Parts: sequence; structure tokens; C-alpha cells
Amino acid sequence: MYFDKDQARGVEATFLWLIEEIGELATSLRSGTHEERLGEFADVLAWLATIANVAGVDLSEAVAKKYGSGCPGCGKFVCTCPSSEKP
Amino acid sequence: MYFDKDQARGVEATFLWLIEEIGELATSLRSGTHEERLGEFADVLAWLATIANVAGVDLSEAVAKKYGSGCPGCGKFVCTCPSSEKP
Repeated sequence: MYFDKDQARGVEATFLWLIEEIGELATSLRSGTHEERLGEFADVLAWLATIANVAGVDLSEAVAKKYGSGCPGCGKFVCTCPSSEKP
Repeated sequence: MYFDKDQARGVEATFLWLIEEIGELATSLRSGTHEERLGEFADVLAWLATIANVAGVDLSEAVAKKYGSGCPGCGKFVCTCPSSEKP
């Protein structure tokens, strides 16, 4: 939807937009309505997808590769790693 | 996959993990390999989804609502808003 603009802007400048949206998401989690949170989550995901596009990364491939076979730690789809471990 | 742990941790503590992964994503964009970037994009998206789950937000609904009918500014699926406007 925004690829031409995003590519012209470049990864670094686009990253700033992501961080701005991360800040707005934090605000909405603290004091926003459910509707405002919906909007802010959408914006963060949109900027993340944008940066991935510009960087030549397929987000679906990325998630499938890391989490498609379950938790990278224990291999289960409902994680059974000890709580002391990341995450 | 991580809902029980995430819910017990709460939104604020989970947000810190998101920010840590945002930092790792920045590092991978600066100096990482394509494989490392795949992993970091997956991690950021995973933590974003985690926070959405804990906050009771459906990420798919959020994106569909904001971007499902095209750019919120111009209504087009390939944005035609002036470059001076956000985004």
C-alpha cells in the first residue's frame, strides 16, 4: 500500500515512524480506549510490515521459520519452558 | 503458545520484552544477516501479538479495521496521499 514511499524513505527513516507508533501504543495501553488500542496495534504492525518489505524480509516466512514448529525452546505449541527462562 | 506466562507477567512487563526485541531488530538491520533479520522480525511480531492477546485485542481485527478498506487517508490500496502528509 505504501511501498513506493517507504522505499524512497529508507529503513532508517521508516524505523523512526515505527518507534513513534510504539510510543503511541504504550499511551493507548496506559490510558486509551479499546478502539484506540485497536488503531495503535494496527499502526505498529503496519510499520513493522513496511520495514520488513523495505528490508526484503517476508514477515510470514519469518514467523513460520521461528515459531511454525512450536516454541523454539521446548518445541511445544503451548510452551512448557521454565518461567525463569526467556521468555 | 505463551498465553499463560504472558497473562501472569502482565502488559507492562511484556512491553519491556517487546522493546528489547525492537532494539535487537535495529541491530540486525544495521549489521545483521538476512537470517538474523528473519529471526528478529519474527520476535518483534511475536511480542506484539502477545501484548495484544493480554490486552484483549485481536490483531487481525485491528488491521482489518484500520487498513482493510485501503489507506485511511486516501482510501486507495496504493496510497496516493501527498508525501508531505503522514506517513
